[in-house]
Amino acid sequence: MNIHLICTGTELLNGGTLNTNLAFIGEVLRRDGYALRREVCVPDGAAAIGAAVREELQHADLVITIGGLGPTSDDLTRDVVADVLGVKLHLDATVLATIEAYLRKRGARVTPQSARVQAMVPAGATVLPNPNGTAPGLWCPAGAGRAVVMLPGPPVELKPMFVDAVLPLLRQGWPPELCSASIRVCGVPEPTVADAVDRIVAACPGVTPAYCARPGLVEVHLTAPPVAIASLADAERQVRNELGEAALPPGCSGMVEAVGNLLRERRWSLATAESCTGGALGALLTDRPGASDFFRGALVTYANEWKTALLSVRPETLAQHGAVSAATAAEMLDGLLSRPDVDAAIAITGIAGPDGGSAEKPVGLVFIGTGVREHRRVQRHLFPGSRETVRQRAAAAALNQLRFDLLHYP
Amino acid sequence: MNIHLICTGTELLNGGTLNTNLAFIGEVLRRDGYALRREVCVPDGAAAIGAAVREELQHADLVITIGGLGPTSDDLTRDVVADVLGVKLHLDATVLATIEAYLRKRGARVTPQSARVQAMVPAGATVLPNPNGTAPGLWCPAGAGRAVVMLPGPPVELKPMFVDAVLPLLRQGWPPELCSASIRVCGVPEPTVADAVDRIVAACPGVTPAYCARPGLVEVHLTAPPVAIASLADAERQVRNELGEAALPPGCSGMVEAVGNLLRERRWSLATAESCTGGALGALLTDRPGASDFFRGALVTYANEWKTALLSVRPETLAQHGAVSAATAAEMLDGLLSRPDVDAAIAITGIAGPDGGSAEKPVGLVFIGTGVREHRRVQRHLFPGSRETVRQRAAAAALNQLRFDLLHYP
Repeated sequence: MNIHLICTGTELLNGGTLNTNLAFIGEVLRRDGYALRREVCVPDGAAAIGAAVREELQHADLVITIGGLGPTSDDLTRDVVADVLGVKLHLDATVLATIEAYLRKRGARVTPQSARVQAMVPAGATVLPNPNGTAPGLWCPAGAGRAVVMLPGPPVELKPMFVDAVLPLLRQGWPPELCSASIRVCGVPEPTVADAVDRIVAACPGVTPAYCARPGLVEVHLTAPPVAIASLADAERQVRNELGEAALPPGCSGMVEAVGNLLRERRWSLATAESCTGGALGALLTDRPGASDFFRGALVTYANEWKTALLSVRPETLAQHGAVSAATAAEMLDGLLSRPDVDAAIAITGIAGPDGGSAEKPVGLVFIGTGVREHRRVQRHLFPGSRETVRQRAAAAALNQLRFDLLHYP
Repeated sequence: MNIHLICTGTELLNGGTLNTNLAFIGEVLRRDGYALRREVCVPDGAAAIGAAVREELQHADLVITIGGLGPTSDDLTRDVVADVLGVKLHLDATVLATIEAYLRKRGARVTPQSARVQAMVPAGATVLPNPNGTAPGLWCPAGAGRAVVMLPGPPVELKPMFVDAVLPLLRQGWPPELCSASIRVCGVPEPTVADAVDRIVAACPGVTPAYCARPGLVEVHLTAPPVAIASLADAERQVRNELGEAALPPGCSGMVEAVGNLLRERRWSLATAESCTGGALGALLTDRPGASDFFRGALVTYANEWKTALLSVRPETLAQHGAVSAATAAEMLDGLLSRPDVDAAIAITGIAGPDGGSAEKPVGLVFIGTGVREHRRVQRHLFPGSRETVRQRAAAAALNQLRFDLLHYP
């Protein structure tokens, strides 16, 4: 089936807002066995939105629109789609009551007109509840087995509505085209992963691989039509066997979760000492709730004097080897692990660039120390890319290095 | 004029990659006085790309394509566009030599065939140099005063090429439609900014305002046709007067730069003490080069014991007032400022959520302490939104609070 997405909003076209809804919907559909075939982004305005809906309906089974359901004069999607579909809008009393209750609960002034605008429903449409905002979603039959579904633009409203209300209706109307499996692989370059997976998949009829590389992590997506589900399971098992510990456990969202779970199982604590990452590793470790189970804190010793004052890095080490050196990383690590409440530790020192590199110590040179109690090691890395990329890769490599330490301790 | 963008790549439609190129191009065009009118995203594949180029050329003066210029079998944009335009491709010896030199310099194996594919140039096209990769951009006349410009997909290659090579050709072909001015405003809610700006702009003929809210920062964009440039300058002056110190200086990219410049002028140093932000403020302060001019480091004291051990927060204070309290924030701040090499400091403690809130201390409650030497203060905030949003807003509010301290010290 063909699913097309129309994103509306001048702010998406003038750089005001990054279109994160597209990536979200694309990923959710893929995981559920569907494919988003096309996306169009148009500015606010009835003419542009109407033309886009008409065009996309020519080739799509389901057209999803995002945005333009709010209460202001810019918000025209509801009227435009009703017009394209040739149906009338009516005021839905239940929707109106829900919107008014939502606004009242939040102490917002209920502007009768704005609530009424958002309570207008096209004839024949299914109302999709919006627990996180005022405008409901609207699923409208569009003839010839097709449908148009209108969703609100704010991600906090769109995301739960898409998963909880749109996917069930989608599954009712169209069976998934594909089964899928995902394997997250850490610390192995994408070409190496792809070589191994391509070779395995070549012997698994019906299975197609896709790859998505993020800093330090490659996501392998395997898909297959429902008739080939056994072949898909076989491919996933073989890939996991081949990749071994480089593959995260099934269902694990990423390296932070993997490291967190290993620490939780052992009731161990973690601390970090950071220089070039500036606190980014600490921020990464705490960006999901539950980090206080294991994370003590981070000592971001950007200045050399702080490395000495807070981590007992010796001034002679700094003078002799420099701040970016295996010796400094080792002493940063030792400084952390000398604290009585730290079981596991990570130390990072490097040159993120774009300035500060030399022939001997180029931009991208990073030393990463990891340790579990008395088992400690420092590895040298040379990361390509921008300042941001070097910092992200350093944080990812550090987490993966510690993950292996935890898996193999003692 | 109509500028349309075609982004190619299945990874953009299946959630593998966030489309940051769209926002980048939209913003650069707007700043230069142009408007991106439409964007389409299609999967890899000659049929989809060809259909999109044909369709968009019906309504656009300039069609920009992104992606599909690489050396693999997926990379078809070059051939498809030449086919749509009805021109032949020829091997460009200069381009080939440039690609081979680029690969050799990086120690990459030069695969003759892959270099040759990327050195194919449509008849009549202008080659846009790519100093950051192999595939050059290609600007192709498309008849009737129109053009198609093909750009590589990796942002690190696309961004400089767009600014350095595409914009000059764009300006040669079409005069900018609009003049623009930007004002970055910190610490004032978007509706308040919009009220003030709308009132001023109403009396400045030809000037249109637009707003873009980021955590802790509202960007005000004023645009006007070239004939109204005096009115635009008048509007900008009045808005800056009205907003006073809430507006960052012209040309200042954001709060980190503003705070950094104030510290540099005074030759003062900065350190942070973070709890709920987990190091995110330190990461923010160091995500551009040059932070070592003023940034000493961050003490991320996630565990209460670390607040005591590293910042001398008294156990009685934690017991009596809790870790999320004005008293704890004040002692964290004092702990930092007691270090001999710290002139200015920020301390943050709060409840980022989604768990851990109570009636008395709800999720989003954050205490921010800032100080310059002996001048110190703690402010209480209640930030709405997700864990990520609370952390971002806390970091932004902290920077703005310190910015005002620096402006008014002593």
